[in-house]
Amino acid sequence: MATATATINLNAIRKNWQKLRSLSSNDAAAVVKANAYGLGLKQVAKALYVEGARIFFVATAEEGAELRSILGEPSDIYVFSGHMVGDTELIKNYNLIPLINSIEQLSRHSKLLREQKFGVQLDTGMNRLGLEPMEWEASKELTLSLNPVLIMSHLACADEPNHKMNINQLNNFLTLTNKINIKKSLAATGGILLGPEYHFDLTRPGIGIYGCSPMQDCLPVLKIDIPVIQIRNIESGETVGYGNTWTSPSKKRIATISAGYADGIFRTIGKKTRLYFEEIGCPIIGRISMDLIGVDITSLNVEPDRLALINSRQTIDKIADDAGTIGYEFLTSLGQRYKRNYTGVAR
Amino acid sequence: MATATATINLNAIRKNWQKLRSLSSNDAAAVVKANAYGLGLKQVAKALYVEGARIFFVATAEEGAELRSILGEPSDIYVFSGHMVGDTELIKNYNLIPLINSIEQLSRHSKLLREQKFGVQLDTGMNRLGLEPMEWEASKELTLSLNPVLIMSHLACADEPNHKMNINQLNNFLTLTNKINIKKSLAATGGILLGPEYHFDLTRPGIGIYGCSPMQDCLPVLKIDIPVIQIRNIESGETVGYGNTWTSPSKKRIATISAGYADGIFRTIGKKTRLYFEEIGCPIIGRISMDLIGVDITSLNVEPDRLALINSRQTIDKIADDAGTIGYEFLTSLGQRYKRNYTGVAR
Repeated sequence: MATATATINLNAIRKNWQKLRSLSSNDAAAVVKANAYGLGLKQVAKALYVEGARIFFVATAEEGAELRSILGEPSDIYVFSGHMVGDTELIKNYNLIPLINSIEQLSRHSKLLREQKFGVQLDTGMNRLGLEPMEWEASKELTLSLNPVLIMSHLACADEPNHKMNINQLNNFLTLTNKINIKKSLAATGGILLGPEYHFDLTRPGIGIYGCSPMQDCLPVLKIDIPVIQIRNIESGETVGYGNTWTSPSKKRIATISAGYADGIFRTIGKKTRLYFEEIGCPIIGRISMDLIGVDITSLNVEPDRLALINSRQTIDKIADDAGTIGYEFLTSLGQRYKRNYTGVAR
Repeated sequence: MATATATINLNAIRKNWQKLRSLSSNDAAAVVKANAYGLGLKQVAKALYVEGARIFFVATAEEGAELRSILGEPSDIYVFSGHMVGDTELIKNYNLIPLINSIEQLSRHSKLLREQKFGVQLDTGMNRLGLEPMEWEASKELTLSLNPVLIMSHLACADEPNHKMNINQLNNFLTLTNKINIKKSLAATGGILLGPEYHFDLTRPGIGIYGCSPMQDCLPVLKIDIPVIQIRNIESGETVGYGNTWTSPSKKRIATISAGYADGIFRTIGKKTRLYFEEIGCPIIGRISMDLIGVDITSLNVEPDRLALINSRQTIDKIADDAGTIGYEFLTSLGQRYKRNYTGVAR
C-alpha cells in the first residue's frame, strides 16, 4: 500500500478540550469549523459530544447543517458567518444559530426567521467580522428586543499575551456590552490563556483542542506515517528530484516515500524537516513532488518500510514553522488521500 | 450562502488534453493522480474518457481502484508507485498496471500476480522512482521474459527546456531501452513541449490538461468566486486581521470574504494577489484567516456580493507565484469546502 496513514487520537482531542474547559471560568464550547480543523468533523464532533460539549461553532451554514446531521439534538450550533443570502432554509431546517454580523444580516434575520435563535457578533477592533460600534449603538435597542442568545467578539492578537490590542479589545467589549444581561463570549484558545477576565460566560476553544500552539501542555492528536516505495544508493555528485536542486555531497542511501504536497506537505517545508525512523530523523532532500519525497536515510542501519512525518519528536507546530506558517494551516491543509485511522473512538 | 464556489470547466480540460494529444507524436495518456490534480477524479476522468482518453496514470493502487470504479472497462490504468506490499488484491481486482520500480517489486509481482500486466519504470537520473541502470541491467532479461507492456521514465527538468539534464535523461533512456521492442514513454507535459524526440510511443500529459505552466495557450479550467459577508468603513490608523499586521493609511472600505487558508488560499499569498469585481482588482489586506480574508474595496463604486480569486485576469499560475509555489500545488491544495460546479459536463 502506497497510501500514507494519518492517525487521529480522539482521546487526546477529548482531553485537550476538557483541559480548556477546566481552564475556562464558565462554560466552554468547541470550534469545529473547516472539517474540525481538517481532522474530520464527524469523528471529532461525536467525540467532543461524548466528552460533554454541547455548544459548537462552525464557519458556514453548510458546515452547521452537516454538524447537525452528525449530532442530532440537543446541541447549540453557532455560525460565524451569520445569516447570509441563501442561508435561511438551512438555518431553519437544521436549527442553527447565526451570529449576526451586520445591520443587513439583522434585517434579513428579523424579517425571514424572527422565531429562530440568533447571536450577535461585535467588532472590537479586528475589523473582520461583526457589527461596528456605531452600528451596534444604532441597532442595539432593536436587536435586544429580538432576544439574542449570545453576544460575542473575537481577539486579533490573543497569541501575543503582552499585545496591547488584547486589553483594548477587552475594554471595547466591556463597553459595548455594559449592562446587557445576555450570555457573552470573547475568548478562543489564546483568550482562555490570557486569564479569567477574558472568559465571560462562554469560551470558544479551537486550535488548543487540536493540540497546537498557543496551547501548551496539550496532547498531540495526529501521527502521519508514510510508506517507503523504494531505496537506492547514489554516488557523490548525483542529483535528486525536480530541477536538480539537490546534489549529493557523497555516497548516500535515498528513500522515496509515497506522499507529497498533494497530501498537504507544503513544498516550502524546509531543510529542518525530518522523516523519522524510531528516534532517528532523516532529512528531506530535493524538491517535494506532488506524491513523492526523497529522504536521506544514510544514517539508518535498516531498510525502513515506513517513515513518520508527525510523531512525538516532530509536532504539527514544528513542521508548520519549518514551512513558514502556523499549525492551523498545516491541519486544515491535510490532504484527502490519507488512510485515516481514528484511535480512542468515542464510546 | 457563505460557501465559496469553484467552477471547473470540463470542456476546457477536454480541449487541453486534445491539444496535448495533437502535439504528441503518437498516443497520449492522461495523468489524473491526486484526485485529478485536485479538480475531481470522477468528473475529470469521465470527461477525458469521452474525449477519447483510454490510458490513465495514477499515483497509488487505491487511486487506481477508484478510477476503475468510475470508468469501468476498457481502459489502461497505470500506477506510478508500482506493486507495493498490500497492493496485490487491488491490482488484481481492479485490473491495474503497476509500474515496477525495484527488484523487490519485480519479485513480488512475478511471484504473486504473474498473469497481471505490468510496466517498468527506469530511473534515468532523477533518483526518485524506477530501477537504477545497474538494477535494470541485472534484471532486464528476466523482466523482459515476463512481457512488460510499457517501459517509462520521468524527466526532472522538463520545465526548463535548455537544462542539460533533459538531453542526458533522453540519452540514458535511449541507451537503457535500446533494441527493446516494447511501448515506451518518457514525456509528461513539459517533455511534450521539448519536442518529438522525447515523445516515444506514449506521452503522459498532466498539468497541461489542467491549464497550467509549462503548457502555454491552454484554456483556463477553474474559476473561484467568494461571497462577501460584510463591508465596513475604517478610519486611518485602524488595523485589520490577526496580529494587527495591516494598518490603514487612510479612510478605507473593507470587505470580509468567506474563504481562507482552509480553502487552500495559502497564508503566504502575497500583496500582489487581488480579488476581482469584474475588471477591477482589489488587494488582500492583513493576514489570511482560516475562513476569512479582508479585501480593500475602496476603489469599487458598488457593494459586491461576491469577489473572484481565480478568473481570466488572475490565473492559477499567477496566484501560485504570489505564494512562492507552482500551479500544481495550488490545484492539489484546493479545499473540500467549495461548492463545486462542473460546466461542460461530458456527454
